[in-house]
Amino acid sequence: MRVDGRGNFELRPVHIEPNYLKHPEGSVLIAIGDTKVICTASIEDKVPPFMRGEGKGWITAEYAMIPRATEQRNVREASKGKVSGRTMEIQRLIGRALRSVVDLQQLGEKTIWIDCDVIQADGGTRTASITGAFVAMTLALGKLVEEKKLPALPVTDFLAATSVGIDAEHGVILDLNYAEDAKAQVDMNVVMTGSGQFVEIQGTGEESTFSREQLNELLMTAEGGIRQLIAIQKEALGALADQIVPKALNESEETK
Amino acid sequence: MRVDGRGNFELRPVHIEPNYLKHPEGSVLIAIGDTKVICTASIEDKVPPFMRGEGKGWITAEYAMIPRATEQRNVREASKGKVSGRTMEIQRLIGRALRSVVDLQQLGEKTIWIDCDVIQADGGTRTASITGAFVAMTLALGKLVEEKKLPALPVTDFLAATSVGIDAEHGVILDLNYAEDAKAQVDMNVVMTGSGQFVEIQGTGEESTFSREQLNELLMTAEGGIRQLIAIQKEALGALADQIVPKALNESEETK
Amino acid sequence: MRVDGRGNFELRPVHIEPNYLKHPEGSVLIAIGDTKVICTASIEDKVPPFMRGEGKGWITAEYAMIPRATEQRNVREASKGKVSGRTMEIQRLIGRALRSVVDLQQLGEKTIWIDCDVIQADGGTRTASITGAFVAMTLALGKLVEEKKLPALPVTDFLAATSVGIDAEHGVILDLNYAEDAKAQVDMNVVMTGSGQFVEIQGTGEESTFSREQLNELLMTAEGGIRQLIAIQKEALGALADQIVPKALNESEETK
Amino acid sequence: MRVDGRGNFELRPVHIEPNYLKHPEGSVLIAIGDTKVICTASIEDKVPPFMRGEGKGWITAEYAMIPRATEQRNVREASKGKVSGRTMEIQRLIGRALRSVVDLQQLGEKTIWIDCDVIQADGGTRTASITGAFVAMTLALGKLVEEKKLPALPVTDFLAATSVGIDAEHGVILDLNYAEDAKAQVDMNVVMTGSGQFVEIQGTGEESTFSREQLNELLMTAEGGIRQLIAIQKEALGALADQIVPKALNESEETK
Amino acid sequence: MRVDGRGNFELRPVHIEPNYLKHPEGSVLIAIGDTKVICTASIEDKVPPFMRGEGKGWITAEYAMIPRATEQRNVREASKGKVSGRTMEIQRLIGRALRSVVDLQQLGEKTIWIDCDVIQADGGTRTASITGAFVAMTLALGKLVEEKKLPALPVTDFLAATSVGIDAEHGVILDLNYAEDAKAQVDMNVVMTGSGQFVEIQGTGEESTFSREQLNELLMTAEGGIRQLIAIQKEALGALADQIVPKALNESEETK
Amino acid sequence: MRVDGRGNFELRPVHIEPNYLKHPEGSVLIAIGDTKVICTASIEDKVPPFMRGEGKGWITAEYAMIPRATEQRNVREASKGKVSGRTMEIQRLIGRALRSVVDLQQLGEKTIWIDCDVIQADGGTRTASITGAFVAMTLALGKLVEEKKLPALPVTDFLAATSVGIDAEHGVILDLNYAEDAKAQVDMNVVMTGSGQFVEIQGTGEESTFSREQLNELLMTAEGGIRQLIAIQKEALGALADQIVPKALNESEETK
Repeated sequence: MRVDGRGNFELRPVHIEPNYLKHPEGSVLIAIGDTKVICTASIEDKVPPFMRGEGKGWITAEYAMIPRATEQRNVREASKGKVSGRTMEIQRLIGRALRSVVDLQQLGEKTIWIDCDVIQADGGTRTASITGAFVAMTLALGKLVEEKKLPALPVTDFLAATSVGIDAEHGVILDLNYAEDAKAQVDMNVVMTGSGQFVEIQGTGEESTFSREQLNELLMTAEGGIRQLIAIQKEALGALADQIVPKALNESEETK
Repeated sequence: MRVDGRGNFELRPVHIEPNYLKHPEGSVLIAIGDTKVICTASIEDKVPPFMRGEGKGWITAEYAMIPRATEQRNVREASKGKVSGRTMEIQRLIGRALRSVVDLQQLGEKTIWIDCDVIQADGGTRTASITGAFVAMTLALGKLVEEKKLPALPVTDFLAATSVGIDAEHGVILDLNYAEDAKAQVDMNVVMTGSGQFVEIQGTGEESTFSREQLNELLMTAEGGIRQLIAIQKEALGALADQIVPKALNESEETK
Repeated sequence: MRVDGRGNFELRPVHIEPNYLKHPEGSVLIAIGDTKVICTASIEDKVPPFMRGEGKGWITAEYAMIPRATEQRNVREASKGKVSGRTMEIQRLIGRALRSVVDLQQLGEKTIWIDCDVIQADGGTRTASITGAFVAMTLALGKLVEEKKLPALPVTDFLAATSVGIDAEHGVILDLNYAEDAKAQVDMNVVMTGSGQFVEIQGTGEESTFSREQLNELLMTAEGGIRQLIAIQKEALGALADQIVPKALNESEETK
Repeated sequence: MRVDGRGNFELRPVHIEPNYLKHPEGSVLIAIGDTKVICTASIEDKVPPFMRGEGKGWITAEYAMIPRATEQRNVREASKGKVSGRTMEIQRLIGRALRSVVDLQQLGEKTIWIDCDVIQADGGTRTASITGAFVAMTLALGKLVEEKKLPALPVTDFLAATSVGIDAEHGVILDLNYAEDAKAQVDMNVVMTGSGQFVEIQGTGEESTFSREQLNELLMTAEGGIRQLIAIQKEALGALADQIVPKALNESEETK
Repeated sequence: MRVDGRGNFELRPVHIEPNYLKHPEGSVLIAIGDTKVICTASIEDKVPPFMRGEGKGWITAEYAMIPRATEQRNVREASKGKVSGRTMEIQRLIGRALRSVVDLQQLGEKTIWIDCDVIQADGGTRTASITGAFVAMTLALGKLVEEKKLPALPVTDFLAATSVGIDAEHGVILDLNYAEDAKAQVDMNVVMTGSGQFVEIQGTGEESTFSREQLNELLMTAEGGIRQLIAIQKEALGALADQIVPKALNESEETK
Repeated sequence: MRVDGRGNFELRPVHIEPNYLKHPEGSVLIAIGDTKVICTASIEDKVPPFMRGEGKGWITAEYAMIPRATEQRNVREASKGKVSGRTMEIQRLIGRALRSVVDLQQLGEKTIWIDCDVIQADGGTRTASITGAFVAMTLALGKLVEEKKLPALPVTDFLAATSVGIDAEHGVILDLNYAEDAKAQVDMNVVMTGSGQFVEIQGTGEESTFSREQLNELLMTAEGGIRQLIAIQKEALGALADQIVPKALNESEETK
């Protein structure tokens, strides 16, 4: 049994509280075990300069931790005057992942700003951010549909993310907490859609390597976790979830 | 009656949730109306270079808002690469206020890092930060006493803050929300101790001025609000509150 | 008697040299004891983006010290690449204070840039800056009137500032020099108009507190000093001073 | 046939010029088609502060492009005053990849600085950087062995990287040039060792997704390319290549 | 004889490889001894804001070294987040020098971006940059003429630069390498045209001085070196060199 | 006659006020025509890290303008967050020039910080800065001698600087004011010692060139101006001037 009593393929308790804040168009507080992230989605009625006039929308994400989200206090990036490489990597990943399940043409010249602020960290903050941000974004887009600013929800599929890893003692495990992550030989983040397609795979063996067989086991484990996360997202979204109807796969490929 | 139905000298509902986060030595979530701030206190076993070797402690504070704490999304200060003048003013105020009720000699060569992260803003974020940070700091110092790292709680008095203002329609009002703050003729922040002494008064007439009589009325109103806030702090601190025993005033003045 | 032989309620010698520099629309060298500040006012024919199209003007201030204005050399903020919290606080205070006595509607879409450069510091640089900047600004606006670019001087009242404090030995004292400021228990900056209205009060007990009675004594002492400073401003402004006619108070309040 | 006449599983011409520069301990110019990168390895006799006293070495990488490496001139990151998210991601990837094949314990408290400067870009600059940097690093470490500063080459295996992708017209293709990369539906970078183990997999479907079958085909194609790249690395390293003797896999796993 | 066997007035071997890179409008690799610089010229169809509407062009230059261009690794300026004073001086010098031999009126509202990236440094990188950049710029302008975007080559004369210095042992010497530069008493950079006119003289005696006689000898030595450099530039430019026809001197002076 | 009625070889009125400020070890206000610069010298009892343990001193300079020193207001470099290339060039020049006339060995491990703050600019600010800074520095070093912290004045010669230029109408002119500088064809700054040796020559033909004959005339003109400036420096220094005894030239050359 793992350090917190879980089985190898078991998620930590997951809770998504929709409409957590008063001001944003969409917001959630997502808790995965002790990891807690506030995700908000803000709609802006224009796109960045490099996209103007194309009739397409854009989705961009920012990520931060409050200083004592972690065991040791971190210096604020605002105080350091620059954003770390780790933060930039995570921000780019979140934005890219969400863009893969939104029809940007249908969104029109709007920008969705996603903000993921970690208030408590215990491993898996980037995957919790993606999973929570998907719900916050869908809530915000749902509000646009309700206000007749969009004819239909431009979300083409569900989207969630989780981490998997290889532990010296337990082998392949799902949803690593901080202690597990710190000693994992291989660490992998997987982003998938509701249709079971991959959106992003980032597998890393820091001072280590992994085989094709291990990779396969990691991916299957991730897929199981993501299915459960999507079920929880559906609950949080309520009736709005029914408006997400993935196109048949061959169709979606033709539209590229 | 005011926009939210309050009387002129009435606070918004105040709630302080102690030990809100897992990692920090002290933490609270303070809610004053729709204003919500996470305050944490972190203890570091050294002081900044300019104070080393003096045997005294230090308290420093940082303040930030998540981007959608407000009606319109704000650009993150980390993305801008610098901290705004407003943020710096607030940070300096919080640190100064807390230092006035801690016996830094008794604290010894330790730094208390206060972090105030606003997750929802509706006016009065700086005074809510001070009021909440006092509780978070006392919780952290209480833990040091419990762990025998300090012989006694080095907190010399209670401390809370509130805003008062002059409204064209209602005259002097207590605890302004954002809408009231935006149209106030005079805006004043007052920090006081449990003994009714002033720690800080910042009164400003932006494009306006105020008389001595108005000042007196503002200060009396603030005092009433601060007394209520301190009562709520005592509840949140529980038994720890009893360890805060203000020295008689003339005594405290001799020690300067 | 105080360290420099002054009485408790006595200002240091004050000298204001108008039109000190060749290029700026308005400029003074103000000396208050050993504190010397060059204040300039520059008129720009546009307002910042957030104010365009409102038909109102804006006043903004910047403050700096040359590195050896002080006993020890300070690192230049340009070399550090950022402006300190203290500088930002002072800049915001100067701008806010001046805006309270200018009719921005009457000024029209112009920006007045105030620059206060301390060439020698001995306490009270921020209050000397406000007192000198008022004269520089009025000289610049007077020139606009002379050149028929404004129909009348949009200055609604005189404005000056001074510091007061509580000293362990002398009690309440006026216009603290650096040595007095460093050991004061309470430090307060007061900005007032010629009509005796407050514009800004910033009172601070760093590691200390103060009572209502002490506050009253501090404010009365400040008022006495400010009256003298305004008399000196009038001399420096010459005939221009006569164009400043404060509206009756109740009138000015109706215009808000 | 692909735009440049290659077959789907064919690399562009690869050339590695060892000892390209005079000053660095190790250096190469690697050309993969029109992509040209100068890779240097510098040895420093200390490790970063967070690692001191552990007896282990460290490898860190930096990556940049000259402004006209690309079709359009890019603003220098030094002029912008900050490093982009893309650059940081690539730098972290290069460092992580190289650390997976060096025995840092055996290296001792030294830092290897890897610099990858792209002088001409036509797609695949990050994978060319890893492939070239491995040779530069090995040359530098070989020099340490020669100078008796290390008892043996602490390189545990060969390491190379390539890109694979899915093209709407051609399906899975190897070693994408810039034109192919810009229109690929899925883009994947794969880093592997000489023993055929994965070190890093980064697969992304920007505004797209991919299935398990497609993933498998991508990985097989990458493996074929990487084998050829390692053959070319061996040539460039000459006799030094013989000193790289991968431990048996089960052994290497025990040492973790 | 000098450390590398040269006579006092002898240049190191000079090689200019035109069209070194694929993307830029003009590019060279210039090698002067072990100093190697990639110079590129990029044409942009607009001028900086301060010059718009004047119908004139602009030339601006940037300069950088890769970290291991030198004996010791230098920290990247992008990582430091700022450009050093030395770099800025060199950049300004290169731009100024090139502008002196281009008819900016004839160029029209275009900007020529010059980038000089030192890949190996052994003294004289700034003069090699000017000498190489002149060729890269002329190649780029020649392409504009060829494409009928300019009626004629707007280059009014050849331009090259070299360093001269005073060595304690050898006296006046030409084209100092790094070892010579480090111990020179006087260091001078001279930029001249094909007509033998000075464009820039920068002579410095760091912790030393020089007389009028020494100055004369330095300048004559520089002139000899520059003549040889211009001959090599002509070879590199081929037929394009014939399109550079300096106006008679008195004429060019009248047009100022 | 020139725009201000001067002859071609005539300086503007020069005034040096020694001991202008209270705090610095040495300070002057230098006025050359309408150009006014406050120069201060601060002594620090250590050298920068790269020089520790060598037993030698160091001199470094910083330069700035207050925003309205000029006709148009300049944005502060502290607000921009970075120092311009022009400022860096000037700072490096001032430091280098002063180091050429100080025996750094005799100074010992001290740093002299020179600060030149331009309060009014009308051309020639960098040469006025050097000329004034030499006096401020000598005053500071004189104080060290007086306080027995140095056995003798480590100043080996006088040092002053001026500008010369070529004007289309007047030919070679001395000490250009701003209007003359803006239209000069050639602009040259010359730094010389009391013994008539050159320390620095920086001659530039922006969009222009100059011949050997013109260079000779420029240098002779500069020499005349510098002689007069040194006479004025001697007056400002009073008795201290007598302690500056240039070594015979051949001697000084042997000590290199």
